[in-house]
Amino acid sequence: MHVVVNAAMSADGKLSTVRREQVAISGPEDFARVDRLRAGSDAVVVGVGTVLADDPHLTVKDADLLEERIAAGKPAQPARVVADSQLRTPTDARIVDDAASTYLLTTEAAGAERRAAYPESVEFVTAGEERVDLLRAFAALAEAGIEDVMVEGGGELIFSLAESGLVDELRTFVGPQLIGGRDAPTLADGEGFLTEFPSLSLEDVERLDGGVLLSWTVEQ
Amino acid sequence: MHVVVNAAMSADGKLSTVRREQVAISGPEDFARVDRLRAGSDAVVVGVGTVLADDPHLTVKDADLLEERIAAGKPAQPARVVADSQLRTPTDARIVDDAASTYLLTTEAAGAERRAAYPESVEFVTAGEERVDLLRAFAALAEAGIEDVMVEGGGELIFSLAESGLVDELRTFVGPQLIGGRDAPTLADGEGFLTEFPSLSLEDVERLDGGVLLSWTVEQ
Ligand SMILES: NC(=O)c1ccc[n+]([C@@H]2O[C@H](COP(=O)([O-])OP(=O)(O)OC[C@H]3O[C@@H](n4cnc5c(N)ncnc54)[C@H](OP(=O)(O)O)[C@@H]3O)[C@@H](O)[C@H]2O)c1
Ligand SMILES: NC(=O)c1ccc[n+]([C@@H]2O[C@H](COP(=O)([O-])OP(=O)(O)OC[C@H]3O[C@@H](n4cnc5c(N)ncnc54)[C@H](OP(=O)(O)O)[C@@H]3O)[C@@H](O)[C@H]2O)c1
Repeated sequence: MHVVVNAAMSADGKLSTVRREQVAISGPEDFARVDRLRAGSDAVVVGVGTVLADDPHLTVKDADLLEERIAAGKPAQPARVVADSQLRTPTDARIVDDAASTYLLTTEAAGAERRAAYPESVEFVTAGEERVDLLRAFAALAEAGIEDVMVEGGGELIFSLAESGLVDELRTFVGPQLIGGRDAPTLADGEGFLTEFPSLSLEDVERLDGGVLLSWTVEQ
Repeated sequence: MHVVVNAAMSADGKLSTVRREQVAISGPEDFARVDRLRAGSDAVVVGVGTVLADDPHLTVKDADLLEERIAAGKPAQPARVVADSQLRTPTDARIVDDAASTYLLTTEAAGAERRAAYPESVEFVTAGEERVDLLRAFAALAEAGIEDVMVEGGGELIFSLAESGLVDELRTFVGPQLIGGRDAPTLADGEGFLTEFPSLSLEDVERLDGGVLLSWTVEQ
C-alpha cells in the first residue's frame, strides 16, 4: 500500500480557522491537481472531524479523469474512507451517498443499531476498541484491494497516521494568507512528537495559485 | 519603519514542540542567512514567551558582519527588544546582558521596583495598561531611530503584529520534519483571524538545508 497525504495549509500551517470554518487556501490550479491525485487513487481517506466540519463529497470532478478510470477497468470513483471510531458521520452526509463506495473505519464501541442506520452500500471495517486502530484498519483496506491511498486530512488523522508510520508521501500546498489561532487545526495535530521527529525529504517545489506546492517523502 | 518577521517552522507549521522545547528545524545555511538578516537590522524583537522558553542572546555571530556594521557607523550589535507586559524577562536572561542594548516593551502594570532589578543599560518603553500596545511601542522605537526591524517570534507576538498591520515581510524556513501537536506553538497563534485574512504575496522560493525558504510580502 502507498499512502499520500495531501492538504492545503496557510503560510502559518493552518488547515482552517479556530471556528473550523473552511478557508479558500488554494485556487483552481491546485483543485485540478487534487482532482488528478484523487483520480489516481483507489481510496480517499479523511477523519470524521473533517466530515463534520466540511461535509465533503470527495469525488473526482473532471469527466475526462472519470473516463480514464473506467477505461482502465477501475470503478468510476475511488472509494471514500472515514476514520470514525463512534460512527459520528451523519447518516445523510455526502460521503455516504451512492456516488462512490464508502468504508467507515470504526471500533467495537459502535453498535449494530448505529451501523444499520447507514445506506446499505456502506461497508464497515472494525479495528480497535475505543479508537480506530489505523494499522489494522489500513491492513483490512489493503486486503480489500486498495493499493493507492490518498489522505485529505484533517490534522488529527494525519498526526496519527504519521505516528503509526503509515505515511509515504506528504504534499502540502502552502497558501498566500495568514489564518493564525493557537486553536486552529494544523497539518499535524494530536499529542505531537517530543523527541523523534518523522524526517522528510523534499522532492519537489512548485509555485502555483500564488502559493507553493511542497512534495515530501517520509523517511522510514 | 520596515518590519521583517523571520522564523523556522516544521513542514506542519510548528515553531517547537508541545513542551516548547527547541527543535533544530533548519541548519547551517539558514543560520548564516539569519545572522545576515540580524546584521542588517537596527533591532531584533521577540516576545517574552521566547525569552522564557529559549533564553536567546539574539546577537550577530559572524565577525565580518560585525565589522561591516561598525564600518557603516552603526553599533556593533543591533538592539534587542522584548515585548513583555509584566516584565517576566529574568533579570539574568542573556537578552539583558551587555553584549548589545536592550529595550523592554512593557506596560503600566510593571512597577518601578521590578524595573530597577534589571541592569542599568536596559531601556523601558511603556505602552499600554495590561498588555503591550504594539502600535505605540513600535512608534516609540521608530522615534529612537530604529528603522529596520527583524522579529524572531514567537507565534503569539507574530499574530499580534500581523493583527496590528505592523508586518511588511515574512520569511519562513520550512524544515524537513514533522513536529505535530495541537498545542505546539505555530508561526501565528493568538486568537486567529476569522474572516479577513492578511493576504501575502510570494516573492521568492529558495531551497536550503533540506527545506525551503519562503519570502512573502504582506499586502496592506
Ligand atoms: N485545508 C485542508 O486541506 C483541509 C483538509 C481536511 C480538513 N481540513 C479542516 O480540518 C478540520 C478537521 O480536522 P480535525 O483534525 O479536527 O479532524 P480529522 O483529522 O478530520 O478527524 C479527527 C477525528 O478522526 C477520528 N479518528 C478515528 N480514529 C482516529 C485515529 N486513530 N487518530 C486520529 N483520529 C481518529 C477521531 O474522532 P473519533 O474518535 O470520534 O473517531 C478524531 O477526532 C476542519 O476544520 C476542516 O475544515 C482542512
Ligand atoms: N522556530 C523559531 O524560529 C522560533 C522563534 C521564536 C520562538 N520559537 C518558539 O516559540 C515558543 C514561544 O512562542 P510564544 O508564542 O509562546 O511566545 P512569544 O510570542 O515569544 O511571546 C508571547 C508573549 O509576549 C507577550 N506580549 C506582550 N505584548 C504582546 C502582544 N501585544 N501580543 C502578543 N504577545 C505579547 C505576552 O506575554 P505578557 O502578556 O506576559 O507580556 C505573550 O505571552 C517557544 O517554544 C520558542 O522555542 C521558535
